[in-house]
Amino acid sequence: MNKLATETPVGWRSSGIVSLLTDFGLADAYVGELKGVLLAHNADARFVDITHAVDPQSVTQASWLLAHAWRRFPDGTTHVAVVDPGVGTARRILVAEDGGHAFLAPDNGLLGPVLSAGARVFALDQERFALDGASHTFHGRDLFAPAAAALAAGLSPREMGEPLDDWQRAAFPAAEERADGWCTEVLHIDRFGNLITPFEVPAALRDEGPLQATACGRSMPFVSTYADVAMGDLLALLGSCGTLEISLRDGDARAALGAQIGDQVILGRTPR
Amino acid sequence: MNKLATETPVGWRSSGIVSLLTDFGLADAYVGELKGVLLAHNADARFVDITHAVDPQSVTQASWLLAHAWRRFPDGTTHVAVVDPGVGTARRILVAEDGGHAFLAPDNGLLGPVLSAGARVFALDQERFALDGASHTFHGRDLFAPAAAALAAGLSPREMGEPLDDWQRAAFPAAEERADGWCTEVLHIDRFGNLITPFEVPAALRDEGPLQATACGRSMPFVSTYADVAMGDLLALLGSCGTLEISLRDGDARAALGAQIGDQVILGRTPR
Amino acid sequence: MNKLATETPVGWRSSGIVSLLTDFGLADAYVGELKGVLLAHNADARFVDITHAVDPQSVTQASWLLAHAWRRFPDGTTHVAVVDPGVGTARRILVAEDGGHAFLAPDNGLLGPVLSAGARVFALDQERFALDGASHTFHGRDLFAPAAAALAAGLSPREMGEPLDDWQRAAFPAAEERADGWCTEVLHIDRFGNLITPFEVPAALRDEGPLQATACGRSMPFVSTYADVAMGDLLALLGSCGTLEISLRDGDARAALGAQIGDQVILGRTPR
Repeated sequence: MNKLATETPVGWRSSGIVSLLTDFGLADAYVGELKGVLLAHNADARFVDITHAVDPQSVTQASWLLAHAWRRFPDGTTHVAVVDPGVGTARRILVAEDGGHAFLAPDNGLLGPVLSAGARVFALDQERFALDGASHTFHGRDLFAPAAAALAAGLSPREMGEPLDDWQRAAFPAAEERADGWCTEVLHIDRFGNLITPFEVPAALRDEGPLQATACGRSMPFVSTYADVAMGDLLALLGSCGTLEISLRDGDARAALGAQIGDQVILGRTPR
Repeated sequence: MNKLATETPVGWRSSGIVSLLTDFGLADAYVGELKGVLLAHNADARFVDITHAVDPQSVTQASWLLAHAWRRFPDGTTHVAVVDPGVGTARRILVAEDGGHAFLAPDNGLLGPVLSAGARVFALDQERFALDGASHTFHGRDLFAPAAAALAAGLSPREMGEPLDDWQRAAFPAAEERADGWCTEVLHIDRFGNLITPFEVPAALRDEGPLQATACGRSMPFVSTYADVAMGDLLALLGSCGTLEISLRDGDARAALGAQIGDQVILGRTPR
Repeated sequence: MNKLATETPVGWRSSGIVSLLTDFGLADAYVGELKGVLLAHNADARFVDITHAVDPQSVTQASWLLAHAWRRFPDGTTHVAVVDPGVGTARRILVAEDGGHAFLAPDNGLLGPVLSAGARVFALDQERFALDGASHTFHGRDLFAPAAAALAAGLSPREMGEPLDDWQRAAFPAAEERADGWCTEVLHIDRFGNLITPFEVPAALRDEGPLQATACGRSMPFVSTYADVAMGDLLALLGSCGTLEISLRDGDARAALGAQIGDQVILGRTPR
């Protein structure tokens, strides 16, 4: 158990709520099997699906969605994120505590942009939590589910593995200042065709006067809300993640621009 | 609180169940964020997703699905419907009580065909329920979720805003009687390719003798159940909403007819 | 009630958990309506969706998914499987108990490969459980939901209908031994493009030395885990159902092979 009398109080008090974020899709039984195992180990767990439609093995997309969703949940939520191209290899699994929430994810960079500097991160003791006869291909069910059941039942991350310092701390790509403005990129495209970048536009820049964004060879004004432009017009604004987004009012910016993940977006002053 | 001693007893007793119907899709974290906020305000809420796959900004489709689904739920259910092209404008949000259920939706016509004449409708006090730092683009998370949390916790619609009389009361398109029969239209097409109209075929018409429907230039008999025609044949019947539907036995009527939402459907007597 | 003093103790103790597996899709309100009715009859039920994306009317696919998922759930789970091309005909509905779990499904072969030899199977008394004014097209809502509510509330399958012996006991297609190896077929293709067969590769065969699989004119080694081959290479292994699967490391085997459900797969010794 490894508890020391001098330890600071444990930060983890489970609410019993478990959020799930995977690339399993909803067309197979994978999500159901994971939940079945979790309930078999902890009948009181309550699930919220963040999404299961992450592009197969897209760790960056999973990071983006989890980074902006997790603080919306009540304290005591266990967040389970399984996008795991390394399943079946010796890759580590992280169990962490941050701001009163618990996390479980492969050590493949997924939690890098998600956790704060104050997070406590541990390497899950995989042998201890794996089901008997665990598969080599479906650790979501055979390893993450029983470990998540324990977290949701109140077991503390620190009781589930050794402290870890060298976990993968990748961050989202930073915006770069250039002659023509700040340069960022499309990191996620949502169901409405909004192009979402990780650029948290500094207030000082917003105060400088009218801005415009450029993407896919088209320019559009940086505004406060959709209704600031006419129906069918392109616009840029701070989206619901608080970062720069490109939208088409009452339409689909991806389709209008032929945009793709990775496309460059520039935000600069509107030329006079 | 605005309660008068002379008021009739409050109709709203929450069961803690919250139904959700949006056009957010399941590929982003939007539904998860909404649920996270709702649980952070009311940890006892229990969710049922009606659907999140309404065509982006299709208020009519949302109305159709909610109108036929809500009475299936137990009394005390809070129904949250967010298809909200006007987000970020000054559009009102309705909070309503009808038949022992509560409703929360933008005032854009969505609740028009949903609520009965006896519904009590209020304009949500948006300032009171909005999260600090609410976005201009995602009121589902920043405004509907905390308001729904309050409803599910038992706060009465009448305590959440001023009574409202001039809300948008749009109805589904009525069938029209013509020389060749009753004329209606395809309002929704389901996953099986069934073409669903809003026409509640009058019993008197059904009693008149054999009927046939015509759609996309093809005619088909009006029958009681799929098994009344041969495999692969077209048919018309009263579907699970109690309205006229066009189906293909063990197949997909949309594909067979090349049908689209808005297509005309005629129901008349079978020619001798 | 039909209870005899000499009966063995009842095997059914509900946990209140209800798993759902249908071909209703998530774009309509069908799943929501089913859950609404179920909650209206049993407010304490808790749902886990296995999937609602079974190909329309694909009984085999539903069987495959349920057969491998159900034992993952805690004892006392009610499993409701509605893929029901015969809705509206006189087809029977099965209510069964097996290994401490309860089952509800049409008698169309779906439960054949799911239940063990020790299952107790009954023909649901449909009149007793149908809603007033039940539709001819949506028994998931009008008949399965109220019956499932009763199971989840603790009513025993044996109290819900007459014992049945001649229900449809279809099994998955057995692998056949041939000169070039064991011959099986693709029964399911998952979201990652893995080709899943029902062949439970015998341990004796695995011990014989290196094996290779052949599908769509390509051969690939039979290995333990994805990491046993290079990125982008094809492989065969025991998948998470414990049966033979064809995969592409960090890719999509379906796309690479142009594979389809029903395609032949051969597993034999690797030629020297």
